[in-house]
Amino acid sequence: MQEKGSISIHTENIFPIIKKFLYSDHEIFLRELVSNAVDATQKLKSLAQLGEFKGELGDLKVKVSVDKEARTITIADRGLGMTGEEIKKYINQIAFSGASEFVEKYKEKDAAAKDQIIGQFGLGFYSAFMVAKEVEIFSKSHKEGTEAAHWVCDGSTEFSLETTEKAERGTDVVLHVAEDSDEFLEAARLRGILNKYCKFLPIEIEFEGEVINQTAPIWTKQPSELTDEDYTKFYQELYPFSEAPLFWIHLNVDYPFNLTGILYFPKVKDELQFQRNKIQLYSRQVFITDEVKDVVPEFLMLLHGVIDSPDIPLNVSRSFLQADAAVKKINTYITKKVADKLAELYRKDRTGFEEKWSDIGLFVKYGMLSDEKFYEKAKDFALVQNVAGKFFTLSEYQEFVQANQKDKNDQTVVLYTTDSEAQHAFVQAAQERGYDVLKLDGPLDAHFIGQLEQKLEKVSFKRVDADTVGKLIEKEEQTESVLSDDDKTRLQDLYKQAISNEQMQVQVEALSPQDAPVIITLPEFMRRMKDMQRAGGGGGMQMFGSLPDSYTVSVNANHPIAQRILQAEGEAGNKLARQAFDLALLAQGMLKGEALTAFVKRSADLLAAE
Amino acid sequence: MQEKGSISIHTENIFPIIKKFLYSDHEIFLRELVSNAVDATQKLKSLAQLGEFKGELGDLKVKVSVDKEARTITIADRGLGMTGEEIKKYINQIAFSGASEFVEKYKEKDAAAKDQIIGQFGLGFYSAFMVAKEVEIFSKSHKEGTEAAHWVCDGSTEFSLETTEKAERGTDVVLHVAEDSDEFLEAARLRGILNKYCKFLPIEIEFEGEVINQTAPIWTKQPSELTDEDYTKFYQELYPFSEAPLFWIHLNVDYPFNLTGILYFPKVKDELQFQRNKIQLYSRQVFITDEVKDVVPEFLMLLHGVIDSPDIPLNVSRSFLQADAAVKKINTYITKKVADKLAELYRKDRTGFEEKWSDIGLFVKYGMLSDEKFYEKAKDFALVQNVAGKFFTLSEYQEFVQANQKDKNDQTVVLYTTDSEAQHAFVQAAQERGYDVLKLDGPLDAHFIGQLEQKLEKVSFKRVDADTVGKLIEKEEQTESVLSDDDKTRLQDLYKQAISNEQMQVQVEALSPQDAPVIITLPEFMRRMKDMQRAGGGGGMQMFGSLPDSYTVSVNANHPIAQRILQAEGEAGNKLARQAFDLALLAQGMLKGEALTAFVKRSADLLAAE
Repeated sequence: MQEKGSISIHTENIFPIIKKFLYSDHEIFLRELVSNAVDATQKLKSLAQLGEFKGELGDLKVKVSVDKEARTITIADRGLGMTGEEIKKYINQIAFSGASEFVEKYKEKDAAAKDQIIGQFGLGFYSAFMVAKEVEIFSKSHKEGTEAAHWVCDGSTEFSLETTEKAERGTDVVLHVAEDSDEFLEAARLRGILNKYCKFLPIEIEFEGEVINQTAPIWTKQPSELTDEDYTKFYQELYPFSEAPLFWIHLNVDYPFNLTGILYFPKVKDELQFQRNKIQLYSRQVFITDEVKDVVPEFLMLLHGVIDSPDIPLNVSRSFLQADAAVKKINTYITKKVADKLAELYRKDRTGFEEKWSDIGLFVKYGMLSDEKFYEKAKDFALVQNVAGKFFTLSEYQEFVQANQKDKNDQTVVLYTTDSEAQHAFVQAAQERGYDVLKLDGPLDAHFIGQLEQKLEKVSFKRVDADTVGKLIEKEEQTESVLSDDDKTRLQDLYKQAISNEQMQVQVEALSPQDAPVIITLPEFMRRMKDMQRAGGGGGMQMFGSLPDSYTVSVNANHPIAQRILQAEGEAGNKLARQAFDLALLAQGMLKGEALTAFVKRSADLLAAE
Repeated sequence: MQEKGSISIHTENIFPIIKKFLYSDHEIFLRELVSNAVDATQKLKSLAQLGEFKGELGDLKVKVSVDKEARTITIADRGLGMTGEEIKKYINQIAFSGASEFVEKYKEKDAAAKDQIIGQFGLGFYSAFMVAKEVEIFSKSHKEGTEAAHWVCDGSTEFSLETTEKAERGTDVVLHVAEDSDEFLEAARLRGILNKYCKFLPIEIEFEGEVINQTAPIWTKQPSELTDEDYTKFYQELYPFSEAPLFWIHLNVDYPFNLTGILYFPKVKDELQFQRNKIQLYSRQVFITDEVKDVVPEFLMLLHGVIDSPDIPLNVSRSFLQADAAVKKINTYITKKVADKLAELYRKDRTGFEEKWSDIGLFVKYGMLSDEKFYEKAKDFALVQNVAGKFFTLSEYQEFVQANQKDKNDQTVVLYTTDSEAQHAFVQAAQERGYDVLKLDGPLDAHFIGQLEQKLEKVSFKRVDADTVGKLIEKEEQTESVLSDDDKTRLQDLYKQAISNEQMQVQVEALSPQDAPVIITLPEFMRRMKDMQRAGGGGGMQMFGSLPDSYTVSVNANHPIAQRILQAEGEAGNKLARQAFDLALLAQGMLKGEALTAFVKRSADLLAAE
């Protein structure tokens, strides 16, 4: 025996949920009601253009007002207006058919949907009950010979409807604000909400005698109509007190999704400034959110500006956004546009591009590291800079150094410094040998180096202090030592004794007499492992947790001090070795604390006694 | 003419919204269905206890299974079960009356609500349609002599219901998984979801032959029943591979809200580790979220552990949470409990408390800075540590230094270092003068110093390098200069010439002959301004943007080098002054880059030539 039936939903039970819980922010009610008013006004304008409405349009402003004493907020438009019958259809019933359209729309993504005007989410009107205990509608249709209607609902599912007198065409929605929503009776609060959500709506919105919006923001215009000044002015409006942006990209696409917008490349002073001025997301000129995660590729979150698209699902859960096909396409499109813009800047104005590099380099590197497609485009215009300040593309730089910096295995060794101040002695030594040194001191450069070593053939990177200059790039020739093997062993022992530190691997090398008497270096591989570990790398890195710091101490057999130490008697040799080692520590930035204080004191005494 | 009527909601229009958009994550369906099964089982157990159910309870496990080939997920319980009539009542209709209870509950916060069992949000069952194209229910009631029922719904509002054969008491919910939800047919995915949401449910849950949950997690027990080992073991279960926690607080409150839980103070190694192991929020042993913002005071977000409360509104918007009175009370309660626990640890075991301070100091300071009530409690047990490693409370420290470190205005001057290595020379000088120096090198200490200066009377803080040691704490006595005023002026001019840097304010002072020949200091006020500016302080700080760095160069008139410079002829004096100045730069960590390389080279040459 089978029974069939219909699942029933009791209006009185679902209504409270819709009223209180469907929107995450109560302030949204004003966006919804103003959007509805704008919608009704735009529809009337369309009818007039089509010749279907022949009356006088007159002043079409949407007026928002608040009466603190009467505890009301009123949203009044001079748009289509509704008859009593239409109110019954659109407010009492159809509210929820709008919702199913909403669902349909994101199911099918049909082209027709883009012709829809804002306010498509039919539940929007009921958001009024998030802040109001009673809502009234006074409406007079644009259709001739119809009577005005007055609708009242106290938030239960009961309504009343009667004819009324109303002079003007259009709809007034009057909210009687509930006790727990007093904040919305403050003009400053309402102004804040209007500024946030309605600043760029296409119909003028008046509040306290002032129009608060720009009806035609520049992203709705064609790039050909706009000057650079228009773009920078708009940037200042979005982000007051910001420095002028470096450049911008005007987005404009119709198919396979609808998207307009302007993305600005900001001048980034330091990392702290990231994220402060966020990209704003609009849907048909209504502000939706500045949480654009998932819509914009992560590495482009550093950009500023606006994106306007009716194709981005709104009021929808995050997991839905992540899986949404339209959002993924938007992502790919924006990445491509940004790469194309950068390529164009590079091609058209290399000098200008180089000047901007300190501001955009971080974006570009972040993009190359996080998006393979972006890497492929960016590898041709990504720049590196040497300590002398000269810029090169990746292929230019390989060309530039290959004659001098190939090792005996035909590998090009790129030398870099992460801090040209702190590593100055090593940079100078490399330069004196005719090597070039890159500045790779940015927060992403460690990862960037890793990427380049994978991508470029026969190229490896070494920090200038990874070895003594003669061994940074291994060649065939060698400097001869003036010391005998016996003397070398004695010298090594003397230094070991003077240094007496297990972490210091002492070795005697035949360097040039002009090189420093002692040089402390950090082998490249170990340093990178340590750096990754410090940066909190993945669990796999924990195995290096117990590795001690490891330094190589290269004692220069050919420096005159070596002879003096070997010839000195008693304590004197030890003292000399210790002082030479202190100087090496100093050059490597490792002489600190008590040891530094003692060194300074000793040097001052020497100076006074000279 | 007034008309009255009822707002109508069309089931077929609202249903898609409920199905697709009400929950933010699709995976929630499993939590909802398993919770319902647990609910039905607990209710049966209650009936048995009351003597109303007299049958055999038998194995009460809830069994979750997946059949990849048949594309089904089944959740089977041996709880109450439903007759065909009950299915019609609870599934076809009452689904939404649950929702209004939910709303009522948070409106009235009545004590009775806490007796409700999980699954109160009646929409939960329908979350099945987020992942299933068809859902079947097979159910047999615990009531004797009733027939089993079989209900089917394909996600439209139509259902069919018939009698069926079912051997076992209880309910099987069978989901026919939709094409776009293939991921949920993977056993690993389901296991992941069960582990996340159901790990501590009070009825055993079996999946693939294994019970995946602990039915009585320790937070549901009394502290008196638990050993330290129980607590640390539970911590390891929550956060595998973590170091043992320092200590914990067992939360347990019935009135005016219901809350249990355990908060752990973790061992914090560095700042990167913050936030990694988040506090987990449960409602009647069902995991809800680890986004506890708004529920837990911000400064306690650094803690780990679990909080379980049916009084925290779930599935509710953030703005609602922020305004919720229960949430605010929970906040206050947790803050108080944490402060009390810390006070108790301090009182009962001062030595242990000092040992833990390096791990908990940051929490405590963050709390003092962000919560006035917490400051009031914490000011009695907050510790400071001097460079010798000794701990003091704030009042103990004032006591300790006041004899020696009062200035001529009766102000106690607390000396501190932000880096005892880098500022070693200054720390040593202060100590030689009998002053004590605090280590204030934490990320919050700059703000903490500001707070203490406001709160403590007649106490100010000065970094050890804010002035030469004789002037750090201004007293009446003064050291006499061995130089005539003329010589002082000449010495100042010679140094100005040697330094030739506008940012360096050169002054000649009568220091002790044992002090350094030149000392570079950074006036406290200017340094703090600069620090705040660097930390990206508010807009008001931008006025200091153009201030150059400003250093004071104190030339020691009484050091033997002063005499030598005055007596030297030609270049020699300039060279000596330059070298003495370089040593001062070195002591202040300011000799860098090219200047440092040159200094090292010059010193090595001197060493070789000696």
